[in-house]
Amino acid sequence: MNCPSCGVAIADAVMTETFLAEAARLLGPKGLTTDPDDMAPWLTDWRGRYTGAARAIASPANTAEVAALVKLCARHGVPIVPQGGNSGMSGGATPFESGREIILSLRRMNRITALDTAARSATCEAGVILQVLHEAAEKEGLRFPLTLGGKGSATIGGLVSTNAGGTQVLRHGSMRALVLGVEAVMADGSVLDLLTPLKKDNRGFDLKQVLIGSEGTLGIVTAATLRLAPAIAGRTVMWAGTASLHDARSLLLLAEDMAPGLLEGFEVLPQHSLEAVQAYTPGTRAPLTEPHAWHALIELVAGDEDTAARLPELAERILATAFERDLIADATIAASEDQAERMWLIRETISPAERALGPAMQHDISVPVEKMPAFVEAAVPRLEADWPGTRAVCFGHLGDGNVHFHVIAPPVSDRASWEAGDGKAISAQVHDMVVAWGGSISAEHGIGRLKRDELARLSDPTVLATMRAIKQALDPDGLLNPGKLV
Amino acid sequence: MNCPSCGVAIADAVMTETFLAEAARLLGPKGLTTDPDDMAPWLTDWRGRYTGAARAIASPANTAEVAALVKLCARHGVPIVPQGGNSGMSGGATPFESGREIILSLRRMNRITALDTAARSATCEAGVILQVLHEAAEKEGLRFPLTLGGKGSATIGGLVSTNAGGTQVLRHGSMRALVLGVEAVMADGSVLDLLTPLKKDNRGFDLKQVLIGSEGTLGIVTAATLRLAPAIAGRTVMWAGTASLHDARSLLLLAEDMAPGLLEGFEVLPQHSLEAVQAYTPGTRAPLTEPHAWHALIELVAGDEDTAARLPELAERILATAFERDLIADATIAASEDQAERMWLIRETISPAERALGPAMQHDISVPVEKMPAFVEAAVPRLEADWPGTRAVCFGHLGDGNVHFHVIAPPVSDRASWEAGDGKAISAQVHDMVVAWGGSISAEHGIGRLKRDELARLSDPTVLATMRAIKQALDPDGLLNPGKLV
Repeated sequence: MNCPSCGVAIADAVMTETFLAEAARLLGPKGLTTDPDDMAPWLTDWRGRYTGAARAIASPANTAEVAALVKLCARHGVPIVPQGGNSGMSGGATPFESGREIILSLRRMNRITALDTAARSATCEAGVILQVLHEAAEKEGLRFPLTLGGKGSATIGGLVSTNAGGTQVLRHGSMRALVLGVEAVMADGSVLDLLTPLKKDNRGFDLKQVLIGSEGTLGIVTAATLRLAPAIAGRTVMWAGTASLHDARSLLLLAEDMAPGLLEGFEVLPQHSLEAVQAYTPGTRAPLTEPHAWHALIELVAGDEDTAARLPELAERILATAFERDLIADATIAASEDQAERMWLIRETISPAERALGPAMQHDISVPVEKMPAFVEAAVPRLEADWPGTRAVCFGHLGDGNVHFHVIAPPVSDRASWEAGDGKAISAQVHDMVVAWGGSISAEHGIGRLKRDELARLSDPTVLATMRAIKQALDPDGLLNPGKLV
Repeated sequence: MNCPSCGVAIADAVMTETFLAEAARLLGPKGLTTDPDDMAPWLTDWRGRYTGAARAIASPANTAEVAALVKLCARHGVPIVPQGGNSGMSGGATPFESGREIILSLRRMNRITALDTAARSATCEAGVILQVLHEAAEKEGLRFPLTLGGKGSATIGGLVSTNAGGTQVLRHGSMRALVLGVEAVMADGSVLDLLTPLKKDNRGFDLKQVLIGSEGTLGIVTAATLRLAPAIAGRTVMWAGTASLHDARSLLLLAEDMAPGLLEGFEVLPQHSLEAVQAYTPGTRAPLTEPHAWHALIELVAGDEDTAARLPELAERILATAFERDLIADATIAASEDQAERMWLIRETISPAERALGPAMQHDISVPVEKMPAFVEAAVPRLEADWPGTRAVCFGHLGDGNVHFHVIAPPVSDRASWEAGDGKAISAQVHDMVVAWGGSISAEHGIGRLKRDELARLSDPTVLATMRAIKQALDPDGLLNPGKLV
């Protein structure tokens, strides 16, 4: 029966009330809110693509409270959307429109519980903000070598759950490579404590790996032990212009060979992206005087003073060798930290600058590293030919075989109708090509809500069946972030 | 009904016959044997601890045949024991005594299907022998940086399935760190193809990680793509005597700081082990003239000529600094490759030399790296006090927090009765101590049949429940290596 006044199912309303009363008792006044104003910012995803509804936002203070809350949800059949900084790119932390779910915010669990300089590790509760960990590590002469645009809001729990990437993956790997231990609350409210890092441990399946990147669908990450690296003693940043992406890749291999263990970043952008940034931020100076088909931004980083002192000379040798081999047409080395920052700012401004050009379909794709130049050369003209008036732009992490592949709408397109029509078909075509090249339709942003249908459409049936079997086994009632990923 | 003549259940015998006829048709004459002489070597494990029986040994020629065979087994309910080189340390590849199982040998699938020097990777069928891969990589100026005693028989499939370790884990990681892609046949005969390596891929759960180290209980690894490293341009091997394991660990940290990215091995052994080796191989010269409580064997490796040329001088500086800091009492640097080999030979002879001293319980354990010295100092005297006449000896991979912890029986012990009585209790005590220190009862040898009960006894219930749920989900009929691991 529904309420004759508001239309809500009465049984549901009664259940909600009982559930919320118990949750409030469990979590205390700071731990639960149903206030629409308090809830509003957390109901819409970072990119503004989805807006959902929730019974409440629960904010437990510690792992025991998370466990108790999950047990309560299991008893009442209440689905849970875990949420950290709400900075995900695929809508994975946003509730659906039904209003049946609760948001489980980990933000109150924001303590760094251990920072071991000898072992070079930090143990963080899930709600620790990435930038806070950066600062804490820096104070101890160390660093956490993963960073990304949302570092001021992204949390450790979210970064673990989405296996986040960023611009330092080339040298340090994605989050998976930096996670030494994990603690998670499972669907039945039990606590899986795998926080203690062991360098070697062959006691069966590596459950930590199962949780990393599972987007809250198999368990709720409540804490993680993370690997730290020595602080940066010095860096040298270069900018080079190349005639092709093949040349840029040869330059990358050359830099890896000549500076083993020191190459921390290798990003590429086409001339189009550089000009978009200049249009978006007037006064931005191009690092090189002439235009080039492709630009490479290269960073060498040393952890000790001796090596740091050798970096500029090493950078010069790399560029000189690249000139000799005709890999680059022009290049410059940042003469100061300020110049280096300005080079990186260009890279970081590409996304908003490209967005300002009008509607675009954005794809976060990877192919086997060595195939990326050929893929881009094949895919870009193909798309532009098939969709007259569009412009395809690729930029990003060449060293990881991962570029952001944007297809900009023809001028005067109406955003909503273009996105829903041609845009959707373009995305399907990009994804089809990526799969044909043995690549991934989500290199670093995860699946969430955004790519769930595409994952189902394009995954190998055995992969999908195996993922679904694991999901069913670990969350038989489907209460952990349902409708996301798988 | 049982056969009045031989006592075998008749239904079972009929089923076996039907099944074997179909399997023979599927695999051809080279692909199936029931000949007792052919089968005998593969029914007993490497250490001679278990001898089982099997209906047959199936040796498919390719992944399609593996898949067809697994489907046939599923139809007939025949349990499968996957086997590579039969060099496992925990009985994981040995059938049980019932005779109901078949052995699925991957040894015929022994082709290296790709060796990509630019991408520095090799794709191998499961039956490729480790040493064969070593040699193939060497020919291309590369190397596969994992090695262990059984390299002449251990296969890639077995190494992946057991997440094998060895003496180069310190720098290159265990097998898990070297596996870029995996192909496996799942319990229903479907093929999970994750062979194409992508540096970045966030399409849901990382199923490759689920298979690595699962000991054939979740799927049968049929191929893997592996990371290769640059060939060794030069190495320098040192030997140092220290007064304590704490000093040895300080020496390790010093070497890591002074030779970042170059430290490939750091093994420790007590004076007892050195003397055991000298007794076992008469004529073995101790690298240092005086006895020392602990000995450290240290190897620096360079991938390029320039760095290789600097290694001897770097080794001298490390040892000089260690002397200054009173970390070592004496040390020597191998003056030739021959001397270096002889130092490593001492390390490699410890296991047989200690075994020759009489019955011993062997444990392959790890604790958090930084705790290992304190653990050994606490555990060794405790055990020797609780079990008068025993001698506890630890040696191995200090840099990985992983030592082989042997407890030698009192003299004149009867092997079988000591192992079954006091020996068993001693093992339980060692494992209890390891768990109390946050460690692992199997650092690198896996669980197999040997440690299954101890795993069940000592695992956190949530860990165990999660592993069992995954096993149940991916192998609902329990036909993949049943009775092993979980």
